[in-house]
Amino acid sequence: MAAPEIKALTFDVFGTVVDWRSSIAREAETFFADHGIKGVDPVEFAVAWRALYNPSMQRVRSGELPFTKLDVLHRMNLDELLRRYDIGGLAEDDIDHLNRAWHRLTPWPDSVEGLTRLKQRFIIATQSNGNIALMVNMAKNAGLPWDVILGSEVVRHYKPCPDAYINCADALGLPPESCMMTAAHNNDLVAASQQGFRTAFVLRPSEHGPDQATDTKAEHDFDYVADSFTGLADQLGCP
Amino acid sequence: MAAPEIKALTFDVFGTVVDWRSSIAREAETFFADHGIKGVDPVEFAVAWRALYNPSMQRVRSGELPFTKLDVLHRMNLDELLRRYDIGGLAEDDIDHLNRAWHRLTPWPDSVEGLTRLKQRFIIATQSNGNIALMVNMAKNAGLPWDVILGSEVVRHYKPCPDAYINCADALGLPPESCMMTAAHNNDLVAASQQGFRTAFVLRPSEHGPDQATDTKAEHDFDYVADSFTGLADQLGCP
Repeated sequence: MAAPEIKALTFDVFGTVVDWRSSIAREAETFFADHGIKGVDPVEFAVAWRALYNPSMQRVRSGELPFTKLDVLHRMNLDELLRRYDIGGLAEDDIDHLNRAWHRLTPWPDSVEGLTRLKQRFIIATQSNGNIALMVNMAKNAGLPWDVILGSEVVRHYKPCPDAYINCADALGLPPESCMMTAAHNNDLVAASQQGFRTAFVLRPSEHGPDQATDTKAEHDFDYVADSFTGLADQLGCP
Repeated sequence: MAAPEIKALTFDVFGTVVDWRSSIAREAETFFADHGIKGVDPVEFAVAWRALYNPSMQRVRSGELPFTKLDVLHRMNLDELLRRYDIGGLAEDDIDHLNRAWHRLTPWPDSVEGLTRLKQRFIIATQSNGNIALMVNMAKNAGLPWDVILGSEVVRHYKPCPDAYINCADALGLPPESCMMTAAHNNDLVAASQQGFRTAFVLRPSEHGPDQATDTKAEHDFDYVADSFTGLADQLGCP
């Protein structure tokens, strides 16, 4: 039997659609300048913040924490970083503004054009660990033309937990085989594939900066491998 | 203190954005012709199907049923109607196709233009009792430019249950006062208002056909009253 037609592309967002590292560094640099904070490297700060991301979700995956939105996890992690770097005396509104830097991430140069083309033929959905407000605000700010915001807050699970994929396909009313997970991360695609999703690897060689050592290539037999969303649109015949 | 700025418009969909009555009647008419079903009036069938909508959600609201997607409730109600009208011998795929008529509803003439204008200034979200797949497929089919699909399946409650509104604002990361419920139904707006939402009544005088007797005018002191989405866009200063 032929594979079912692909109806929906579901996208990892942080790193795949948007460049979190340089965006957070830029926001941190501005924030530090505005608040007279000296001696903290903004790129190091961005990387340190992101390094707390997975361990904080792991506390949810393990059941140690009940389901908690990423905005809240980001804030817990930011508070930890502010202590670590001995940054104090900030107003609550200012800390909240910095925490929402994740709502203002900048897309990779091909993201908007590629998504716009892919949207003509497929349902395009976020399947991110980001919460709904974060994804909506990012989309409004960056012009990302999503058909639907899915992901952690809708399915109440964090990737790569199997239910994060199964419940996403179910929300779309589609069998997993009609959904294609699209990501710059081998582990996300492998986890999706194990639940029956089709897979598209999109290379983002500078997500982790100039010396990136992980996800520098597709390490498995994915259905599609591309170096941009526009390249993926070409391969999928989206004009 | 001034009222907080409106950031998001949340929309009732069935009746407010799309014309379910004539769309379902059209689908039923085609279906009956294709399957040699005679003697059933398509408009009567559409109205009878819709009449089972609220009672079926009430079984969820009351706790008699666990949360059940509208696609499933629609199908239970369709099965009941097929028995009532003594329509038998249909293939499962055909019944499923008819059930998905709700995914193919036609917008009112001003809906796409009005939403497109409103989207320039506000987050536009569905806040419907429809499930995610239904809303996504309807949007793809009809060109409805939603920023985000919220509503029953995301919040796990059916309107006018208070949590259906509270959880929707929470998902957007907004206080209810920054959200404006937009609907053609007085009761939906009253329920939203009771949870702190701003309100916009949009008149849809033929939702229930030429002799419509309910929701023929705004019956309460809503924030905005319009006779189309383009009229609402005018009032809200959306070019």
